[in-house]
Amino acid sequence: MEQRMISGRLRRLRNRLREQKLDGLLITKVENVRYLTNFSGHDSWVLLTARGCVLLTDSRYTEQARGECSGCRIVERKGPITQALAGQLNGAGGPRRIGTEPSISVATLRKIKSALRPQKISVITAGTWLEQARSVKDPPEAALIRRAARIAWDGLHASLAHLQTGMTEQQLTARLEYEIRMRGAKVGFETIIAFGPNGSRNHHQPSGRKLRSRDTILIDFGAAVDGYTCDITRSFGRGQVTKEYERAWETVWAAQQAAIGKICDGVCAAEIDAAARQVIEPSGFPLYGHGTGHGLGLEVHEIPFLSPLDKKTRLTAGQIITIEPGIYLPGKFGIRIEDDVLVTKKGAAVLTRDRRYGFSEPRLRILK
Amino acid sequence: MEQRMISGRLRRLRNRLREQKLDGLLITKVENVRYLTNFSGHDSWVLLTARGCVLLTDSRYTEQARGECSGCRIVERKGPITQALAGQLNGAGGPRRIGTEPSISVATLRKIKSALRPQKISVITAGTWLEQARSVKDPPEAALIRRAARIAWDGLHASLAHLQTGMTEQQLTARLEYEIRMRGAKVGFETIIAFGPNGSRNHHQPSGRKLRSRDTILIDFGAAVDGYTCDITRSFGRGQVTKEYERAWETVWAAQQAAIGKICDGVCAAEIDAAARQVIEPSGFPLYGHGTGHGLGLEVHEIPFLSPLDKKTRLTAGQIITIEPGIYLPGKFGIRIEDDVLVTKKGAAVLTRDRRYGFSEPRLRILK
Repeated sequence: MEQRMISGRLRRLRNRLREQKLDGLLITKVENVRYLTNFSGHDSWVLLTARGCVLLTDSRYTEQARGECSGCRIVERKGPITQALAGQLNGAGGPRRIGTEPSISVATLRKIKSALRPQKISVITAGTWLEQARSVKDPPEAALIRRAARIAWDGLHASLAHLQTGMTEQQLTARLEYEIRMRGAKVGFETIIAFGPNGSRNHHQPSGRKLRSRDTILIDFGAAVDGYTCDITRSFGRGQVTKEYERAWETVWAAQQAAIGKICDGVCAAEIDAAARQVIEPSGFPLYGHGTGHGLGLEVHEIPFLSPLDKKTRLTAGQIITIEPGIYLPGKFGIRIEDDVLVTKKGAAVLTRDRRYGFSEPRLRILK
Repeated sequence: MEQRMISGRLRRLRNRLREQKLDGLLITKVENVRYLTNFSGHDSWVLLTARGCVLLTDSRYTEQARGECSGCRIVERKGPITQALAGQLNGAGGPRRIGTEPSISVATLRKIKSALRPQKISVITAGTWLEQARSVKDPPEAALIRRAARIAWDGLHASLAHLQTGMTEQQLTARLEYEIRMRGAKVGFETIIAFGPNGSRNHHQPSGRKLRSRDTILIDFGAAVDGYTCDITRSFGRGQVTKEYERAWETVWAAQQAAIGKICDGVCAAEIDAAARQVIEPSGFPLYGHGTGHGLGLEVHEIPFLSPLDKKTRLTAGQIITIEPGIYLPGKFGIRIEDDVLVTKKGAAVLTRDRRYGFSEPRLRILK
C-alpha cells in the first residue's frame, strides 16, 4: 500500500484516540498491524500515539520491516515484547491511558497490564475500530483482490487440464495450489475440493476419494496477493449429471444472482441473505445452514457477515463481500457458487467474474 | 487418535476441574478442541463437565463431527454459539462456575459472560492446562510427526530433482508443497525458501529471486499428518560455496549436535539453548537472535520454548522440540539446521533424521 493511504488510516485512528481520550493504541492482531504499517511478518506489535507510530519487532524480522515499513519507527526488541512496550511508554508526560483491541487474548492483556503497572498506565479495551476501518476498502485493495482472482482463475484453468478419472481430491488440490503458487501468489486459505457426496460437507478436507468418470466436483479456493485473498467456489459436473443436480445447480445460480442484484450501499445484510433463500425455498431443496456471505480482505472472513440472524448490519459502499448460497444433499452432492463483490453506491461490481474460461457463465459446466 | 487415549485426557482434565472446584471447562481453541475430541474442523467449542463432554458445532460441520468424534455428544446449534452454550448449562443443579482458556479473546469472554449472566454462572480464566497436557506427547503423536517427516523428506527429495538455474524461490516452494500434498499430507506451515542473502531474513517469504549456478539455499518446511506437523530446516550450497559459508555451516551443525546432546528429562531449557550458543560464540560468527527451539505438535509453535531469557522451564520426557541454531550474515547468507527431537528419560530421539537421502549427514551438501 502507498504511504499516503497508510497515513490517512493513521490520521483517522488518531482522531478516534482523541475522541475516546486515549493516549495511545496498542495493535497486536497481525492483519491490523499490516493494515497500519505494510509489515507482513508476525509476532510484532504497533504502538500508535498522537506523536508517533512504532513497530515493536525482533531480530527475525528487522531486515524485513525496514524494507516494508516507511511510515513507522522500527524497534528491535531484545527482551520480552511487553517489556519493550513499557520502555516505549516510559518518560515524563508519557501516556496514562492506552487502548487495546478486543481480539487480544485474556492472557496477553494480563501480561501487558502487569508490565505497565509500575508506570501507572491503565489499559482499556477499545472498540473494533480497525476491523470497521478495514471493512471499507481503498481502491488498491479491491485491485489486489481482482489480481488475486485472475491468478486463481488461471490456476484453476491450468489444473483442470490435468483432471482424470482415478485422481484423488488431494491430488487435484495439490495441482491447483501448485498452479496458483507458480503464478507468484499464495494460497489464500485451505482449499476445499470435494467429489460427489463429499460436497455436502461444507468444510470438507480433500481426501483420498477418487474421481469417477461420472461425478460432481465442488472447488472452494483462493489466491492471495500482498495479503489480500479472493474466495471463489464453483461446482461442476463430470461426464453426466442427474436431472436433480442440474436443477439444484440452476437454483443455486439463480439464488446467487438474486442476492447480487440486491446489493447496494445502505442495504440491510439480512435482506441479501433473504433474497438468496427466497429463490431456494420454493424449489423444495433444503436451505443451507451457513450465512450467504462475509467480508474479505486481509482476513478471509471479516465483517460484515451476511446472516439471517443479524438484522442490524447494513452494507457500505467500498465493502467487499462474498455471495455464496448452496444446496447440500447429504449422501448425494453439494453445490455452492461463490463470488466476491464490491459494494458500490448504486449497486455491485463482481470482482471474480471470469470471461476468459467461461467459469462464470450462467450454465452448469460439464467437464471431461 | 484412539478413543482410549482421548478418554485418558478427559479423565485427567476432570481431575483438574475437581481440584479447582470448577463445574465445567469451556474449550474454544481449535487445537485444544481437536486434542479432546478428534474433531478437525473450526468454529466449534467443547464443554466438559463432570458428567459429559459436548461439542457445540453448526451445520457446516455436523456430518464431519459425526465421523470424527466418538467420545462426545455433538450438538448442532442454530443460533449464536454463546446461546447454544447457555442452553447446555441450563437446568436444575447445573454448573455454577466454569473455566475458560487464557487464550480466549477479551471480546469472546465478554460475550460468554453476558450470555451466562441470567443463569448466574460465573466464568473464570483457568490455567494453560491443555497446553501443558499437550506438550507431553502420547506415542501415537510422536509416530505422526515421524510420518510427517518421512513425507517431508520424500517431498524435498522429489522437488530438488527439479532444481535449475533461473527458477525462483516461489517456484521451488510451489514444487515442494506440491510434492508434499501429492503424498497425502498437508503443508505444515508457510514454507520458507531463501536463496543467497535472503537466507539471513529468518522469516523470509519466498520471492521472485532467481537461483544462480553458484548460490546458497535455505529451506524451512514441514508436512502435517492428522494435524501433527514436523518442522525441518536444511541449508545447502549450489555449485560452489565460499570458505566462510562452509565454516559457518559446520559451526551450525556442531552447535545443533551440542544442543541435542544435552537433551534429557529434567534438563533446563536454557541449558540446551546455551549449549548451541557456546559452540557459535568462539567461531566469531554472530549469535542468532531467535530461540534455539520450541515445542511442536498440533501447533507448529507450542510450549516449551528454548530461550536464553527463560531460566525456569525444564524439559519433560515425552515432549517434542525443535533444535534450530543458525548463523545469519545480512547481505551474505543465512544458515539454519533444524530437527525435531523427542525428549526421553535418558536423552533424545531425533524424529526427523533422514538416512535415505543423506539430508541429515554431518556434511554440507552441494547441490547440482
